Amino acid sequence: MSPSDDLPSRAARLDATCPLAGTRDRFLLPDDVIYLDGNSLGALPAAVPGAVAHVVATEWGERLIRSWNEADWWGAPERVGDVIGRLIGAGPGQVVVTDSTSVNLFKVFVAAARMRPGRRVVLTDGGSFPTDLYVLASVARMLDLEVVDVTCGDALAAVAEHADRLAFAAFGQVDYRTGELWDVEAITRAVHDAGALMCWDLCHSAGVVPVDLDAHGVDFAVGCGYKYLNGGPGAPAFVHVASRHQEAFDQPLTGWQGHGTPFAMSPHYRAAEGISRARVGTAPLLSLLGLEAALTAYDGLSVADVRAQSLSLTRFFLDCLDGLGIDLEVVTPREDERRGSQVSLRHPDAYAVVQALIARGVIGDFREPDLVRLGFAPLYVTHADALAAAQHLAAVLEAKEHDEPRFSARAAVT
Amino acid sequence: MSPSDDLPSRAARLDATCPLAGTRDRFLLPDDVIYLDGNSLGALPAAVPGAVAHVVATEWGERLIRSWNEADWWGAPERVGDVIGRLIGAGPGQVVVTDSTSVNLFKVFVAAARMRPGRRVVLTDGGSFPTDLYVLASVARMLDLEVVDVTCGDALAAVAEHADRLAFAAFGQVDYRTGELWDVEAITRAVHDAGALMCWDLCHSAGVVPVDLDAHGVDFAVGCGYKYLNGGPGAPAFVHVASRHQEAFDQPLTGWQGHGTPFAMSPHYRAAEGISRARVGTAPLLSLLGLEAALTAYDGLSVADVRAQSLSLTRFFLDCLDGLGIDLEVVTPREDERRGSQVSLRHPDAYAVVQALIARGVIGDFREPDLVRLGFAPLYVTHADALAAAQHLAAVLEAKEHDEPRFSARAAVT
Repeated sequence: MSPSDDLPSRAARLDATCPLAGTRDRFLLPDDVIYLDGNSLGALPAAVPGAVAHVVATEWGERLIRSWNEADWWGAPERVGDVIGRLIGAGPGQVVVTDSTSVNLFKVFVAAARMRPGRRVVLTDGGSFPTDLYVLASVARMLDLEVVDVTCGDALAAVAEHADRLAFAAFGQVDYRTGELWDVEAITRAVHDAGALMCWDLCHSAGVVPVDLDAHGVDFAVGCGYKYLNGGPGAPAFVHVASRHQEAFDQPLTGWQGHGTPFAMSPHYRAAEGISRARVGTAPLLSLLGLEAALTAYDGLSVADVRAQSLSLTRFFLDCLDGLGIDLEVVTPREDERRGSQVSLRHPDAYAVVQALIARGVIGDFREPDLVRLGFAPLYVTHADALAAAQHLAAVLEAKEHDEPRFSARAAVT
Repeated sequence: MSPSDDLPSRAARLDATCPLAGTRDRFLLPDDVIYLDGNSLGALPAAVPGAVAHVVATEWGERLIRSWNEADWWGAPERVGDVIGRLIGAGPGQVVVTDSTSVNLFKVFVAAARMRPGRRVVLTDGGSFPTDLYVLASVARMLDLEVVDVTCGDALAAVAEHADRLAFAAFGQVDYRTGELWDVEAITRAVHDAGALMCWDLCHSAGVVPVDLDAHGVDFAVGCGYKYLNGGPGAPAFVHVASRHQEAFDQPLTGWQGHGTPFAMSPHYRAAEGISRARVGTAPLLSLLGLEAALTAYDGLSVADVRAQSLSLTRFFLDCLDGLGIDLEVVTPREDERRGSQVSLRHPDAYAVVQALIARGVIGDFREPDLVRLGFAPLYVTHADALAAAQHLAAVLEAKEHDEPRFSARAAVT
């Protein structure tokens, strides 16, 4: 028996015994798709259409302005923030859902720099998702900071090197391209030992990789609502500020909804107590309440079980690649403790490979310059999906489908 | 015949002959409500529920990530911006829907200050909606600007006084409390004569008061999607940058969606050409596409007709107050050319008066410290509504209903 003969039975056994059995029914997925792009846009949770329709027709249409009180629209950013807090190890009152990740990064970076006056160095990963780099560069320009790029491997040495000039460090828990998992605990501790502050970007980890913000004393975090949290396209992002820093959290986007008494209409800004001071303007409630409904897909699940399922899926997919003789370079770490919830493969025609897979109903995505990125959202991706995706990939490569011109023409948005 | 006897027939005649006859049918309004709060949260357009349901179930649920191209989610901010541009006199390519008003103010204020280095004075209206003041104070702190408060009456004199030190002026076209209409043309011209830049806040005017940004050479504008534009609770806001300034528009929220080649994933920010550089992160698409559907309520309407209907409604309501002997102070200018689309009345127990009206199904709102604020959204408010609202107000005051304790207890959000 060749190694690949055993894969279907392994997939069946793993799916039958997995701790998240049945959670796929919490999503409305098309039958003809194997969806491995939940790290870019999460699938539609079954609870969302009805919830959004209710918000539109009843809360907005019938109750109109009264829903600010009756449906507690006003409290939604903090209420949904607390639900996310449970998934990232943050106790109540430390997370608020508001704005986009980029805007939240701006708030956190400015506030962190203001908390460390006189320290002018900021460490980041030059391979971060670009928006983190762009926003940090803008803040550095406004506040006269020096940005130093490091990689996962040299982060601790860089912290030590810049210790007494370090204001803060800003890294992502999971590398969006490679899926590499950074060590939140060790890096946060080192940054604190240097007297600096730590900001984690959880865009590619929240909802799928455990992170214990409270236990590790993380100062600030931001993350995305529409990837593994399944909040829908452009769902608002979240920002976390540890309780102990909230009084000192002096962020520059001083909109009226972050005011302590917003309806007093005072001409002078006085930041709200607590996490609410990270609010700015009125939240996009259709999107925000869609996210709230989406998060019910996590009801009753432990993050540890989600992680176990995620690792099982990616581990099995790597085994499928081996078993099917697919010899693309795997840029994602094979060690469980260094891997997020995706597998990225290098191919010189990665864009066309991704398009050929999509034509076969296997939806992943392409990342410059040469990566096929496949995300495994453990609430709705199965081991059977993982095997089928690997089989389709083997077929694409075998038939050189990626050489067909229709697959290499770039779409407007890739 | 007393003056009030004639009001019902006048209302009937005006409603029968108005240029917007039938537009109320474009909205789903509850039967038991007279809704005079469209200046806070616009009513639900009939086109929205189906459009949002389609976005959720089909574009997101079935097509998933593919909708970024197939449904042109990527182009939605500029596409919807152009629709709004038509309502505010801005040609294509100058308006983008993104973020909240507060966040957009931050972008515009920083960019304007950077375009006038060496000039450190900024003029604003100390009675502006507070978020404008808060954001301006934050920008002034970051960029070392001096903010000078003026009022509508002394704006031109203040521009002249500070001329050679003036970087920009930031005013609202319609005062959110009083409904006073500012003179966009004269003030913009004076600011330009001083060599400075002009930012208009159109939150309380877009969609209901004509403003001709192109004709008057306005440099920047921001506005709200959920008031008269009816985009739904927290619909994203818009920002306008005149074409001639776009190349120099150097805004600080440098998110990846404002990048010239966002999917190149370059580590260095290079702003997109055109208005797209005012984008930041991913737009909340349920809310944004809800706004797009909502704007179809304006299809085929001229802003001049909308304005005519608005003035007819507020003029008639003022006549109703007189005819019914309601002698509250009217803080809104009675001259048509100085009045937006609302009527604000002063009453020492304004909060309780508003609550008593709401109990009667007449929904307006309260603004500190003593204003009853009634907005007349001309697409769905009728002259019959205006008369009925005045009659309910007369009844509340006659019976002193506002003295009832149930009406004076403050709700969480007022």
